[in-house]
Amino acid sequence: MIDRRRFGGTKCVVTGGLGFIGSNLSLALAASGADVTVIDAAVPTHGANPANLSGAARPIRVVHADIGDHGAVGESVTGAQFVFNLAGQVSHIDAMERPVFDLDMNVRSHLGFLETLRHVSPDSVVVHASTRLVYGRPLSLPVAETHPCNPHDVNGVTKLAGEQLHLVYQRMHGLRACSLRLCNVYGPRQRIDDDRQGVLPTFIRMALADQPLTVFGKGQQIRDCLYVDDAVEAFLAAAMSPAAVGEVFNISHDRPLPLRFIAEEVVSVVGRGRIVSVPWPHDRAQIDIGSYFGDSSKAARVLGWQPQVTLRDGLVGAVEFYRERLACYLSST
Amino acid sequence: MIDRRRFGGTKCVVTGGLGFIGSNLSLALAASGADVTVIDAAVPTHGANPANLSGAARPIRVVHADIGDHGAVGESVTGAQFVFNLAGQVSHIDAMERPVFDLDMNVRSHLGFLETLRHVSPDSVVVHASTRLVYGRPLSLPVAETHPCNPHDVNGVTKLAGEQLHLVYQRMHGLRACSLRLCNVYGPRQRIDDDRQGVLPTFIRMALADQPLTVFGKGQQIRDCLYVDDAVEAFLAAAMSPAAVGEVFNISHDRPLPLRFIAEEVVSVVGRGRIVSVPWPHDRAQIDIGSYFGDSSKAARVLGWQPQVTLRDGLVGAVEFYRERLACYLSST
Repeated sequence: MIDRRRFGGTKCVVTGGLGFIGSNLSLALAASGADVTVIDAAVPTHGANPANLSGAARPIRVVHADIGDHGAVGESVTGAQFVFNLAGQVSHIDAMERPVFDLDMNVRSHLGFLETLRHVSPDSVVVHASTRLVYGRPLSLPVAETHPCNPHDVNGVTKLAGEQLHLVYQRMHGLRACSLRLCNVYGPRQRIDDDRQGVLPTFIRMALADQPLTVFGKGQQIRDCLYVDDAVEAFLAAAMSPAAVGEVFNISHDRPLPLRFIAEEVVSVVGRGRIVSVPWPHDRAQIDIGSYFGDSSKAARVLGWQPQVTLRDGLVGAVEFYRERLACYLSST
Repeated sequence: MIDRRRFGGTKCVVTGGLGFIGSNLSLALAASGADVTVIDAAVPTHGANPANLSGAARPIRVVHADIGDHGAVGESVTGAQFVFNLAGQVSHIDAMERPVFDLDMNVRSHLGFLETLRHVSPDSVVVHASTRLVYGRPLSLPVAETHPCNPHDVNGVTKLAGEQLHLVYQRMHGLRACSLRLCNVYGPRQRIDDDRQGVLPTFIRMALADQPLTVFGKGQQIRDCLYVDDAVEAFLAAAMSPAAVGEVFNISHDRPLPLRFIAEEVVSVVGRGRIVSVPWPHDRAQIDIGSYFGDSSKAARVLGWQPQVTLRDGLVGAVEFYRERLACYLSST
């Protein structure tokens, strides 16, 4: 664990800070005494929720803008010590339906943002949020950073291009950028009001409503699920590590868990719901990449980061949060 | 060699068909009896040259449009048996100076084009032009298709994303697409009027003008140079091979040639010019990927393709062409 007091008094920018991981990160930075500015376009369906920043330890400034809009964001990033770049489109289903929009959000805006950074804040440390989806279907498990990147869907292609542009700007323009390839992150402040954010939020919503949790096929596909506090810690550790610059890191739990087991844990923790198995729907089967679990030993070695929260403890945290604030997370768009 | 008569009477579309490789391919298809439509946005500096299509064996229809403009190109691609997708921005220097434009040309327009294809011409065979630049700095030589893709500059990132989108549309939507990773292609109809197309066209222009050929450093960096007729043959072979669908292929000469030797061959073939060595300029050193030569044994195995033209024979062909038509290639923009 890093000493979070080192962020005290620093100027931090979190793009996508109204979203799931971005808001948890912003709250953690504010709690550490950082001066936090959130930049968020609040694109409908992307997960931005004003309720996500409630209860911050210090005021968090929110700029509603697309990160690619230099005029709107230039001033906010000028002189930032730390830029956490989490803005983006994360739904694979949305990316299939609106591919050009996905490209614009995940690549075009980021490229504009990198141009802004190199001109107005070339000394910022930049931590970009990438995804395990850049690998595509795993050729072997667990998947390390050296695994070939053959993204299986549009969202994987755009996230990979965004990540690679960060690394190019590091090499070409000296930006102190790195990227974290996140696995399935879950926990408080995630959208749970539709089925496009992955299985865990859907499972949690269904269990809370005492509805059936649908598992495709036999539920034997492996996933690694990471509690959001562990993901936040990875962003902070990457920001504080000079050795991270120019590198990509898997941020995952390393522990293979079959989807059916995950569903059972949700039902057990919530104490409601039940599991039903159905055949794979066509559109999901097309974009599913099979079993996945990552090897995050590089993050352990270079960043000193390791996941601390078990699935069960994480689910307890998430379910407790949603029980208290369910209304805020079913009504958001 | 494939039997080119098999293209007789087929409907073919060549995007970027006013450019260097696209025009050579269009002329070859027309000579084979194909009904050829060229789609070309004729973006200044991209190499489009109306003179490139002069002397065609059959009339070639030219549509001036961005390939991402569904309304402008939809009718032209409807019912095409073969789509050769060569449109794009190929200069690494331009990509550094105008990165968002590079992204728009190499990814956004292609994504729109893929959407058009899947809706109006889902049965087309699509052969996409990619580049060796997707690999970035080689970790080992020669570079096979399994080498990791870590593009070293913006142009490499955008070309890789364009290539991957073609493969995603193949898997997701059944498009019969493949992609060719081209090495340094040279020959007739290439722009030689500025220094942004690679070293060979610059060498040829300087030698023809009896000017010095500048070699950075000691000229020991390895390049593989492919004569454009060999590249054209690769596109035709890929189009005719059902086994190519969903695959990427290195299209390169496999033969390591130091840059200084290449310069000496140009001076020898032209009979004019001389070689001077200068230190690496900063902006070139930044984007140079060091020595490169590719392994195209996959193309040999799957497509039955192998390069046929030696560097010397290719240079003779190129120099003869430019001697006759130099005016058309120094005045184009």
